[in-house]
This record gives sequence, structure tokens and C-alpha cells, in this order.
Amino acid sequence: MVASHKNMIFLLKAVFLLLVQCKADFPYKEDYFDTYIDHFNLMSYGNKTFKMHYLYQDQNWNPNGGPIFFYAGNEGPIEGFWTATGFVHEIAPQFGAYVVFPEHRYYGTSLPFGNFSFQPPYLGLLTVEQAMADYAVFLTDLKKRLNATNSKIIAFGGSYGGMLAAYMRFKYPNIIDGSLAASAPLYMQDPDGPHDFFFQHVTQDFRDINEKCYDLVKLAFNLMDDLAAQGQIGLDRIQAEFKLCNRLTDDQSYRHLLGWIRNAFTMMAMLDYPYPTGFMGNLPGFPVKVGCGKILNGTNPLNGLAEAAGVFYNSSNEKCFDIFAEFIECADPTGCGTGPDAIAWDYQACTELSLPRGSNNITDMFPVLPWTPELRAVYCQKTYGITPREEWAAIQFLGQKIQSASNIIFSNGNLDPWMGGGINKDISNSLVAVPVIGGAHHLDLRASNPLDPPGVIEAREREKGIIRQWLSSP
Amino acid sequence: MVASHKNMIFLLKAVFLLLVQCKADFPYKEDYFDTYIDHFNLMSYGNKTFKMHYLYQDQNWNPNGGPIFFYAGNEGPIEGFWTATGFVHEIAPQFGAYVVFPEHRYYGTSLPFGNFSFQPPYLGLLTVEQAMADYAVFLTDLKKRLNATNSKIIAFGGSYGGMLAAYMRFKYPNIIDGSLAASAPLYMQDPDGPHDFFFQHVTQDFRDINEKCYDLVKLAFNLMDDLAAQGQIGLDRIQAEFKLCNRLTDDQSYRHLLGWIRNAFTMMAMLDYPYPTGFMGNLPGFPVKVGCGKILNGTNPLNGLAEAAGVFYNSSNEKCFDIFAEFIECADPTGCGTGPDAIAWDYQACTELSLPRGSNNITDMFPVLPWTPELRAVYCQKTYGITPREEWAAIQFLGQKIQSASNIIFSNGNLDPWMGGGINKDISNSLVAVPVIGGAHHLDLRASNPLDPPGVIEAREREKGIIRQWLSSP
Repeated sequence: MVASHKNMIFLLKAVFLLLVQCKADFPYKEDYFDTYIDHFNLMSYGNKTFKMHYLYQDQNWNPNGGPIFFYAGNEGPIEGFWTATGFVHEIAPQFGAYVVFPEHRYYGTSLPFGNFSFQPPYLGLLTVEQAMADYAVFLTDLKKRLNATNSKIIAFGGSYGGMLAAYMRFKYPNIIDGSLAASAPLYMQDPDGPHDFFFQHVTQDFRDINEKCYDLVKLAFNLMDDLAAQGQIGLDRIQAEFKLCNRLTDDQSYRHLLGWIRNAFTMMAMLDYPYPTGFMGNLPGFPVKVGCGKILNGTNPLNGLAEAAGVFYNSSNEKCFDIFAEFIECADPTGCGTGPDAIAWDYQACTELSLPRGSNNITDMFPVLPWTPELRAVYCQKTYGITPREEWAAIQFLGQKIQSASNIIFSNGNLDPWMGGGINKDISNSLVAVPVIGGAHHLDLRASNPLDPPGVIEAREREKGIIRQWLSSP
Repeated sequence: MVASHKNMIFLLKAVFLLLVQCKADFPYKEDYFDTYIDHFNLMSYGNKTFKMHYLYQDQNWNPNGGPIFFYAGNEGPIEGFWTATGFVHEIAPQFGAYVVFPEHRYYGTSLPFGNFSFQPPYLGLLTVEQAMADYAVFLTDLKKRLNATNSKIIAFGGSYGGMLAAYMRFKYPNIIDGSLAASAPLYMQDPDGPHDFFFQHVTQDFRDINEKCYDLVKLAFNLMDDLAAQGQIGLDRIQAEFKLCNRLTDDQSYRHLLGWIRNAFTMMAMLDYPYPTGFMGNLPGFPVKVGCGKILNGTNPLNGLAEAAGVFYNSSNEKCFDIFAEFIECADPTGCGTGPDAIAWDYQACTELSLPRGSNNITDMFPVLPWTPELRAVYCQKTYGITPREEWAAIQFLGQKIQSASNIIFSNGNLDPWMGGGINKDISNSLVAVPVIGGAHHLDLRASNPLDPPGVIEAREREKGIIRQWLSSP
């Protein structure tokens, strides 16, 4: 009887998880929109267009004034954002909303110049302004096509997509009626804004699990430095401990390994969701806790560090780690991913996007891997022949002087290392900060889950209420 | 005794007028600012810059928080706007303001590519967005240089400059705290906005002086058509009547003459100031009244029409009129002026700026000289190899959906034919329409003059009050 009761509970749990899984699998339709290659110079590519990919779902739409929920596609194939943004799909029926996710130019399959897109001078048309113009023109056309010129448009976005959602309201309030900018580090775009918060916050996330994790990570990095100082014999010892496919032969490859490790911690902290996810890599639920457990249970500090890094990289299930394939050093010290999308993001990090400084081993537990405007200038000149304009983003995207804007929610999770670059207190009645207690990187945008912390349930309710308010105002 | 009293009054009047004259001659300093050739593509011209000319006056500036009064330079050498915008200079001392007038790229001496600027592909970087970015970067730098990061910036502009002043507040509210957009036809930028008001208003201005002017102008154009239909003999008669330097040989040259005449009426109506001015040509005070007088006093209707056109073109004081030198047909049916500035304006009229439709002889007194999106497309393709994007301006510059903006004054004079393209009623508490009764094209921006109608004195007072309010708010 006890056994069968247990079986019953197990069965119910399985069915429930299956239902959640099904619910999380939101079907879409897809199409392509011909958008201008260059919105800002009629003499460069004239009226030449490229095919911008977009996903949409109209099954819940109320054509008599139902709103359009628009997700501002960011740095990756749009399908990934569709899947990771279940919140929008879940609330669409309640609002009778048309849901549309256009893909950001130069990502996924939305390549203005096909395979040539990532070469100069073609890469030069990868800018925030062009992407926003793509969306503005696309949405204007969509409204006409749907005969929905009176429908309101609410923008959604997470991370850089959240910045875009806010920027769209800043720059195109004629098109966007309100924005939910989730985990969007807007203030970081000001050169005088916060840049030193990131690795400090990653460190804190691990300390909050167990102070010993922090001590052991620091110790392990010190031991690695000692080994590296011994020359090849020490580097080989490190290679063995970390199960690296390739031999470490010099300081450069050693520093690459350090970046590879730091990146794993970055990802565990950013994606510290309470359930397993496949967004930006396969991670278990509560990866920070899992990672910290690996550190605590290591046969030695190096082994613990290696096992913790493996929490992120083991998705490949390979016997050894190819750190050069799995991690690319780039203009973003928090990582650029891999593949063509990584090039596009690297270029954006070299041009209009301002990103966190590196780690310093003082306010964080990581090795000294600095990233300064000076290092960035050298790297971007070497890589693309261009020099970043440090002051531009704050001029063009309002920096920290956003008080004249309206109808934007800024949500930030307290587990998210990006939080410190964002807006965490109300600026006005219509520029509202929504904290997501217990949330990592834009958890609020994800589909609901039985393992959700109460903080995200509350945040989503508030967000829904504010959106309802925007839609009901004249 | 009576005579000497009269002499005294005459003397005082002369001194007063001299003082007004002196006061109107506002001295400036000048300099150049290195601004990026292309703000929106780091791979096109990299960090290459050109010298943007600007005028400034700091003698009244209160460096302890005094504001910056910025005039958004428009389609011409900046000196002309400095001279024609005495209002700003007159109120600067009352506000302790720093006054700065940067020149619009591709006009005056602010040529990104020197003499090559007006050829493709170089002309392609003449856009509203680039010009606005020039101003945004320049003003940010200026504030730093002046150590005035807390100073507020008020934008001023007339006509297209007024559009720019409003757009700067729309798009860069982090930099611009409030704008006076004088005689700025913003709603005309929406393809669904007003486009048919212009020649109707020019016509009305003449009818308001004397209905007979309207009748005689219509009659004269009919007589011309009759003559032109007679072939060369009729065209020669027209040439003689209009004192043209060159023979009219075909329909094209005849139609050019019609455009030349209509342009004179446009200018008299736009610049219908109560005193002689040298802005965009030398005109007497009340040129519409003067022009109408010529029409009424003509020895015949053609002679009257010719004499009226001469009110505008007689500035050359030549014995015959060279209609091909004095008037250029272009993408703006209200005229592009002459010289390199005319090419730049023509290109803007072919790209981002939406202008009035032509005349139709039904709602106006002019010949049928149509200007439609279709004609524009043909002309711009032929002239520059480009096709205008009709919908772009309304997307990029908010069209008629500007209600979320704030702190903008829209002023319009009821004599000004551009009025119908502008914003003539309050949109909100902070988007305010200020009528200028008795005013032509941005009369309110001009220096005060003893001949000013009470309406403009009142408008300027209101504008000053609102600006003061913006500056005193936190």
C-alpha cells in the first residue's frame, strides 16, 4: 500500500512534469520580411533588402483591437528566444495578443549578405540603430497587413533584447506603447555608469551558497598560478587535472584556460534557474549550488574547480575538454558564445555596446583578467580595424538620463550578475523597477514552472498588471 | 516751433531705428568641431572626421548653471540663421545663456568631403540622423569643455531647423531639455498627414489682401496658357512681357517660367514680414501687399503678374530675368534655392523629407504644376539613382504620434503657408502650440522690431515664459 502510494505520487509527478514540458513547447509559425540592408544611407545599398526571419503566433489574437506582443530579438537565432520566453506565450491568450518575434540582423538566418555578412565592410551594417529600424519598419508594415493600425504594441526583451525593448520605446514611442526590459543592463551603456559589478556578483552568488566555495576557488586559482610558474611540468599537471584535450604550451594558452573556467562560473550564475535548462548550454537546476557542491567535493582544490567548470561544459559529454572550441576570447569578458553569432556579438561589443570590466581578484574570486577601454581599443583595432567610440552609447541611447521616457518596466533578478548594470529603482510612475527575488537572468520572461520561486510569480503578476494598465489607457 | 518739434521726433525715430539696427547685428565668435563623417557605420569611414562650422556667443553666459541655447542649423550657411534668429540673442542675457549655432552638414562650409560632397556615393551621408548625431555629439562635447554638465540645453529652430529642434527632443531627451520648434511642418512628414495646404495658403494670403489679386493672377495664368498655345509667337510675347533674358522655345521652358513665377509668390507669402528683410532674398516689408499692389496696378494682367514676380527677383536689379539661374526645379515644389545648398536640399527632399504636393489651379490660383509621390520617385531615380521611402519619415520621426514626447513649443504664424503642415493645437501640458497672429515664416525667431505685430510680441513672451519654466523645473 505504501509502495503503491509512492508509485502513484511518482506517476502523478511524471505526468505533471510532462504537462509542464508540453506547455513549455510553444508552437509557432514563421515567415520572412524583406527589410532594407541600410536604413540610413540610400546611396550605399539603395533599396536592396534582405530576408529577416520572424516567428509569430496569431491563434490567440483578437483582431478587434487586441495588442501585438513583440519580442525584440537579440544575439542569437530567434527560435531560442521564442522557447525561453514562455511568459509572453502564456499571457498572450489573456490579452488576445498577436505574438511576434523578429530575428536580429546578423544572427540566426537573418544575414544581410549571406555568408559574406561577417566580413568587412559588410559587418559595418550590424548596428543597434539598423536593428531597431528593422523592427520599426517591420512592425509598421505588420500593423498595416493585419489591418490593426489601432492595436497597441508592447515590446518584450531580455538582456540585450531588454535593452532593445527599452530603446525601442525611447526612440520609437510612435510604434511601441510600452516595454518590459528584463535583466537589461542599460546604465552600463554610460561610460560613467557601472562596469565593475559583474564578476563581483558572480562571486557573491557562490559565496551565498557556501563561503567555502569562495575560499576554495581562490585557493585553486592560486595553486594554478604556482603550477604555471613551474613551466611545462606544471602546465601538464594542470592539463591532466582539467582533462584538457590539448597541451597548454605557453602563458597565452594558460590564460585562455583561466578565461574558460571563469566563463563556466559566469554561465552558472547567469543561468541559475531552479530547474534544468537548455538556454545557452545545458545546465542542471540550481547550477550555482551544483557547481559549489563540486568544488566542496573535489579530491583537491584543482579537481573541484575542474569539476565545477564541467557543470557548464559537460554538455558535450566528451572525454576531454577542448577549451579553444568551447570558449572564445572576445570583446565581451562575459563571453560571446561560439559560431557566427559569436563574431556578430564580438563586433557589437567592439562598437556600440559597453560591457563589464574584467576580473581583478580583489572584489571577485577570479584571476586578474582585466578588460578596460584601452584593451578593448587595441583588440577591436586588431580584429576589425575599428576603434570603439566610448562615448557614443550614452549619447545615442540616453545613458543614465532616461527620466523623460515613459511606460517601461525594468525587471532584475537578485541572483543575476547583470543586475548591477540595470535600473533597480523606480524613476517615475511609468518607469518602474520590478525586482525578481530569487531570479537569475530574466527568469521572469520564462514560462511558469512548479519550481519557480515566489518572487518571480509575484514579479510576473506585477508586470501583467502594468501591461494591462498601458493597454487600457487611451 | 512746430517744425522743430517735428524734426525732433524725426531725429528720435532715426536714432531709435539705428539702435534697433545695431541691436539686430549680433556679433559672434566662430570655430570648427571635428565630427564623424559616418556616425552609424564604423567600417565605412572609420573614425574619420570633418570640420563642422559653428558660431557661438559666450559673453552673456553664466557659467554657474546658465543654460545653453542651441540653434539646430538647417539648410544653409549658419551665418544666415544667426542673423535671422535675433530672438535667441535678445533673450540670452536674461537667461545667462551660452548661445551656439552649429551648421548642418553639407551646407555652408560644413562639407564632409569638400567639393566631392555633392556626388554619389558621398551625398548618401546627408541624412537627418547624421545631422542630429553631429549635434548630439557636439553638444555633449561642448558641455564637457565648458564644464557645464549640469547646464540645460534648449533647442531652437525654424522651418526644417524647427523640425530638427523637435526631433532632437524626441530622440535625444538626454541632451535636449526643451525645444522651440518654430514654423516646423512636422505632421507633413507623415505620408497620411497634410500635404495639400501649401499653395492654398499662399493663395489665401493674396486673397486676404484683395480678392482682385486672386482674380487677376488666375486670369493672367489663363492668358499665358492661351499665348503658349499659339506657339512661338505667343511664347515671344510672354518673353517680352516678363523681360526674360532667354527665349522660351518649348513647353519645358514655358513650364519652367510658371514655376519661377509661382516661386516668387511662395517667397512673398513665406517671408511676409512687416519690414524689409534679406533672408532668402531681398524683400520689401509686407511683400504680399506690395506684390498684390503690382498686380492691381499692372498695365495688363501679364504685366501685373510679371511685376509681382519681380518683387522677389528684382534683388538682382538686372535688366532681364534669367529664369534658369534664378529658379531651379527640384524635389521641393516650394523651391530649393540655388548653388550647392540647393543640391543638398534637393537630395534631402528626395530622401527623408516629405514636402507639399504641387499646385492644382482648383484650391489655389496657380497653374497645374503637380508634385506627387510618383513624380518624386521618377525625378529622384533620374537625378540620384535612388527611390524615396515614402513611409520612412513617419516611422523614424514619429509622424503624427508624438503625444509621449514633452517640453516642445510648436509656434506657427497664420500668414505662413507652412502653417498647415505643423502642429496648431496643444497636445498636452508640455507639448504646446503657440499661434503667432500676424506672423509669417518663423517671425517669432527674428529680432524684435518696432513694426512687429502685437501677436508676435505676445508669442515671444509666452515662449520665454515656457522656457523659463523648463529651466526652473528640477
